[in-house]
Amino acid sequence: MMHPLRKHIEEIISLTDEEFEFVLGHFEKISKRRHQYLVQEGEIVKREYWVLSGCLKSYFLDETGKEHILQFGMENWWITDYESFVKQVPSKIYIDCIEDCDLLYINFENREKLTASMHKMERFWAKKSKMGRIALQNRILSLLKNSSKVRYQLLLEQYPSLFQRVPKKMIAAYLGVSRETLSRLND
Amino acid sequence: MMHPLRKHIEEIISLTDEEFEFVLGHFEKISKRRHQYLVQEGEIVKREYWVLSGCLKSYFLDETGKEHILQFGMENWWITDYESFVKQVPSKIYIDCIEDCDLLYINFENREKLTASMHKMERFWAKKSKMGRIALQNRILSLLKNSSKVRYQLLLEQYPSLFQRVPKKMIAAYLGVSRETLSRLND
Repeated sequence: MMHPLRKHIEEIISLTDEEFEFVLGHFEKISKRRHQYLVQEGEIVKREYWVLSGCLKSYFLDETGKEHILQFGMENWWITDYESFVKQVPSKIYIDCIEDCDLLYINFENREKLTASMHKMERFWAKKSKMGRIALQNRILSLLKNSSKVRYQLLLEQYPSLFQRVPKKMIAAYLGVSRETLSRLND
Repeated sequence: MMHPLRKHIEEIISLTDEEFEFVLGHFEKISKRRHQYLVQEGEIVKREYWVLSGCLKSYFLDETGKEHILQFGMENWWITDYESFVKQVPSKIYIDCIEDCDLLYINFENREKLTASMHKMERFWAKKSKMGRIALQNRILSLLKNSSKVRYQLLLEQYPSLFQRVPKKMIAAYLGVSRETLSRLND
C-alpha cells in the first residue's frame, strides 16, 4: 500500500520510490493525546506537522481569555504557526489536539535542506502555500461580507465531518459567533 | 543601475546577469491610468502584476454594493487575484488603480514555465507566497481580536505612506469601519 504521505504529495508532483524515501527521511513520527499541545504562545515553532490521524485546532486567546480559532486540522492537513515557523519569531497562537493524534513532522532545518536540494518539493510546498493563502483570502472575504448564518452554512458544506468531530463551542469560536447564536443557526 | 525587479528578487535569491535577463524575458510592461481596471469580477485572471510605480487596490462588492478592500498595492508589491490566477477560476474581486500605474506582469503560462525550469524562481515565489499567507493570517487575527481603533493604529504604523496616498474612505473600507468611525479615530 502506498504511504499516505506519498499519496498526498503525488496529488501535486510525482515521485520515484527513491525520491519518496529521501523525502520521508526528513520526517519524524509523533503521537499526541487529546488536549496535548503542539505549539504554545511565545515559543519559536521548529516543526511543521502533517496529520496522519486525529483532529487539531490552532487558536489565539484575546485579552479577556476568549478563544478564537484560526484553523482546524484533520487527516492529510498541514498545520503549524506559519509566521513563527517561517520567520523563526515567537508564536502568537496555540495548537492543540481535539482528538488523539498521529502526526509526521519536519523540522525547520530539514525543510530548508529538502526544498533547497529538491525542486519538486519546493514546488509541492509552493503550491500548498498558495492554496493556504487562497483559503485565508476567502476567510477574510467571508468575515467581511457574510452573516454568521451564511458562514455557518459554508463551513457545513465545506467540511461536513467537522460537525461530527468538533464540539459546538469550537465551531462558534471559529465562526466568531456566540454559542447561543450558533444554537439558533443549528435549529 | 540595477533593474528594480532584480533588486526586489535579489532580496530573497541571487541571480546572475544571464539569469535575470531570462527571468525578465517572461514579463511585459503595461501602464494604466487612475480608475482603470486590472481585474474585474467574473473574469479568469491571466496575469500576476508587480508594481513599478503607482498605487492600486483589490476589493469586492457585497450585495448592497458596499466596497470591502482586501489589499492595497504600491511600488515593489505583487498583486493579482490569487484564487483566480492559481486555480484559473472566475474572480470574485476587482483590482483598480488609485493612481496612474506602471506595472510589469507575467502571464499564467510564463509563470508556470519559469518556475518549472528555474528552481530559484520557484523558491522566490514560494517565499513570497508564504509571506502573503502570514500577512493574511495576521489580518484575520486582527479582525477577530482587535477593535477598529487598534486596527487603525497598526495600519498607520505598518504603512504610514498609505495615509498620504489613499483617501480616507478607502482606509475605512480596508479596516471594515464606517467613514464616521474613522474620522473619530483620526482626531
